[in-house]
Amino acid sequence: MTIPVDIAALSARAAAMIEALGAISSTPDSLTRLFLTPEHRRAADLVAGWMGEAGLGVSEDALGTVRGSWHPAGPQAPRLLIGSHIDTVVNGGKYDGSLGVILGILAVEAVARSGLAPAYGIDVLAFGDEEGTRFPTTLSSSAACAGVFLPSSLDARDGDGISLAEALRAYGTNPDDIAASAYDPSRVLAYIEAHIEQGPVLEAEGVPLGVVTAIAGASRLSVTVTGEAGHAGTVPMRLRRDALAGAAEMALAIERLARAGTDGMVATVGRMHVEPGSVNVIPSRVVFTVDLRSASDASRRAALTQFGRDAHRIAEQRGLGVVISAFHEVATVPCYRDIQLRLSDAVSTLGQRAPLLPSGAGHDGQAMAKLCPVGMLFVRCKGGISHNPAEYASPEDMGMAAAALIRFIERFQQPPFNGGTSGARM
Amino acid sequence: MTIPVDIAALSARAAAMIEALGAISSTPDSLTRLFLTPEHRRAADLVAGWMGEAGLGVSEDALGTVRGSWHPAGPQAPRLLIGSHIDTVVNGGKYDGSLGVILGILAVEAVARSGLAPAYGIDVLAFGDEEGTRFPTTLSSSAACAGVFLPSSLDARDGDGISLAEALRAYGTNPDDIAASAYDPSRVLAYIEAHIEQGPVLEAEGVPLGVVTAIAGASRLSVTVTGEAGHAGTVPMRLRRDALAGAAEMALAIERLARAGTDGMVATVGRMHVEPGSVNVIPSRVVFTVDLRSASDASRRAALTQFGRDAHRIAEQRGLGVVISAFHEVATVPCYRDIQLRLSDAVSTLGQRAPLLPSGAGHDGQAMAKLCPVGMLFVRCKGGISHNPAEYASPEDMGMAAAALIRFIERFQQPPFNGGTSGARM
Repeated sequence: MTIPVDIAALSARAAAMIEALGAISSTPDSLTRLFLTPEHRRAADLVAGWMGEAGLGVSEDALGTVRGSWHPAGPQAPRLLIGSHIDTVVNGGKYDGSLGVILGILAVEAVARSGLAPAYGIDVLAFGDEEGTRFPTTLSSSAACAGVFLPSSLDARDGDGISLAEALRAYGTNPDDIAASAYDPSRVLAYIEAHIEQGPVLEAEGVPLGVVTAIAGASRLSVTVTGEAGHAGTVPMRLRRDALAGAAEMALAIERLARAGTDGMVATVGRMHVEPGSVNVIPSRVVFTVDLRSASDASRRAALTQFGRDAHRIAEQRGLGVVISAFHEVATVPCYRDIQLRLSDAVSTLGQRAPLLPSGAGHDGQAMAKLCPVGMLFVRCKGGISHNPAEYASPEDMGMAAAALIRFIERFQQPPFNGGTSGARM
Repeated sequence: MTIPVDIAALSARAAAMIEALGAISSTPDSLTRLFLTPEHRRAADLVAGWMGEAGLGVSEDALGTVRGSWHPAGPQAPRLLIGSHIDTVVNGGKYDGSLGVILGILAVEAVARSGLAPAYGIDVLAFGDEEGTRFPTTLSSSAACAGVFLPSSLDARDGDGISLAEALRAYGTNPDDIAASAYDPSRVLAYIEAHIEQGPVLEAEGVPLGVVTAIAGASRLSVTVTGEAGHAGTVPMRLRRDALAGAAEMALAIERLARAGTDGMVATVGRMHVEPGSVNVIPSRVVFTVDLRSASDASRRAALTQFGRDAHRIAEQRGLGVVISAFHEVATVPCYRDIQLRLSDAVSTLGQRAPLLPSGAGHDGQAMAKLCPVGMLFVRCKGGISHNPAEYASPEDMGMAAAALIRFIERFQQPPFNGGTSGARM
């Protein structure tokens, strides 16, 4: 069967739901909704209400994840998971995370009401800790679903000294139930997430939807360049050991590597601290950061190695010291190729072309990949802007995304990859 | 006649006087001696005592400059001025400024005691405001001697809100007498200053003394580069407008221009401020400074023009905005060629070679050049370090400098350039 979809109606409902959820904030004139706060509770209750109206069975797990279940084949049947998160950054946008939860509800509601009776069930998940803004943790709620929650995270404390364990109890859940919140990998088919792109590619290509190939791995480096301070007027150029000039050359070297790189590689020097930082003193020490991402760990690692060589060559030529330390390292999570194909197919039934693109930002799928195959559908957002009040996706694009999820679900059959596989086999 | 010089004795006396003057500080464990403070008074009194012991007539002008006069041909005879400053930066060194005053006293004492009776007189000057640390003024005391003191400077206020006029009165001088402190240009032959190099050139060349060709002109620029912020993971390299990458390229461009420049050109990017300055955000705005100096205004101006072209080309290629504003501009003061020759000759009589080099740092000679021809003798300092407690010149080098000044004075005849000429005719 082909489920009838009314994209205009889906667009209008998605837009109204985005506004309703976006109005729940700890601040009156902006959107800030942190994990396990009263605003999280109100948002979770609103989502739970929507799930109930959509005909889903509603529950909440030990990390506060709201689960809306549609189990036409009974609770023991394997499940497709569709989700995203309802927490935000400070002064964030209305679409980041919320959109994926809303689209999941709209799509499952449409499928459930169509009379389709598949051999599998669907859980719509509304995670609460994707942004990692309140606690020095991130993806803790999806990690609990995936069975990879680290118990030590319970001791993480927010800016007021409240531990995650204390905050969970205050929220009304029991940390002792976290292990029981994990899905049984043998009963999960896949995890699918729709999300705004948070980048400019789909807008540049002029299309509403894209299919994610991988959630890019990332390396973050701190690079310290040491030279020798000196009077800006009295030290001839040939006798200088200028840390800033060396750092500038290194920043251009990593940019060049990323431009020549494959797998959507990107590199960013986002911070640069110059000492002593006086207009008339030759800089003696510069510390800068490198954020390097790629949809393939191999290409990222190769670029890191080459950058190390380049930086040391530049330092040697200039009589500088350089120390490179990696302070953050996340492996690439490839999206399951079968899911990519099915998402592309679903979009194409709507007369749209869905470009393949990596996700440079992190997502709950990074945790869920420990449980099951993952796939992501990106929705065009204006100017690529995210984590900002100016974040925007059009109602038409959101309706199109809801329709694509419906088409994906109706074609989804218990696939050959069933059974706790990871995306690594793409 | 050739005045007998005992370099070892001069060395020992210079070193002892440096220690005595260097002990006068507002801070117990470091050297900080600001203009018109109690420490300035104590230092001025010590210097005045030395001048008196050397047989000089001592006076103090309206800006607190201590003047030690030796007038063998009477007060109406033309004068040679020899001086430097006795103020310091915060946590400065013992040699910067003080050495030139001490060497002037030692040299004139030796000449006066030798029985030489030239047709001209000598004034040794100890200025109090070269560093410009206390008030947002600089060279105010030498400007008063040169007759170019700006009356508006009297309203400049220090960090405690005290005006220069108030501080002068508290110090015991009368601002109404400033105009009368100016020398009559028709009665001044030249201004000579000995100073530590504050740079590494003489040490690299293995010689104790150098002759300054010019006090380099300087331009300081503030360069603002504007791009577009974006997520470090989601914006492909081809769609970026990275302000920091553009700024890095511009910093290397000005370095390249200085390396290829003439007249001892040097360029320094000493400050770089990156916004928003997050590891995972593409920089949207970078502000950096350029300090560009050269011993020729023409070469400096040409480099500035070329830098403007380079920066705009780089900005255009990267889709960035760039605004360059000059916030400080000082013209080059060439040292009078006849004085350079006489100083070189004086050094050579001591069996030493004196390389010619520009002064990249500013000096009282910049103000005194408005009054008369100027010349400078540089003394080697360890590691080129200055404005730092580690500042050091060896007793031997100081003694050699005193001897060179004695040789210069004894050969100094009323020269053909007499009469208020500027150094521009070199």
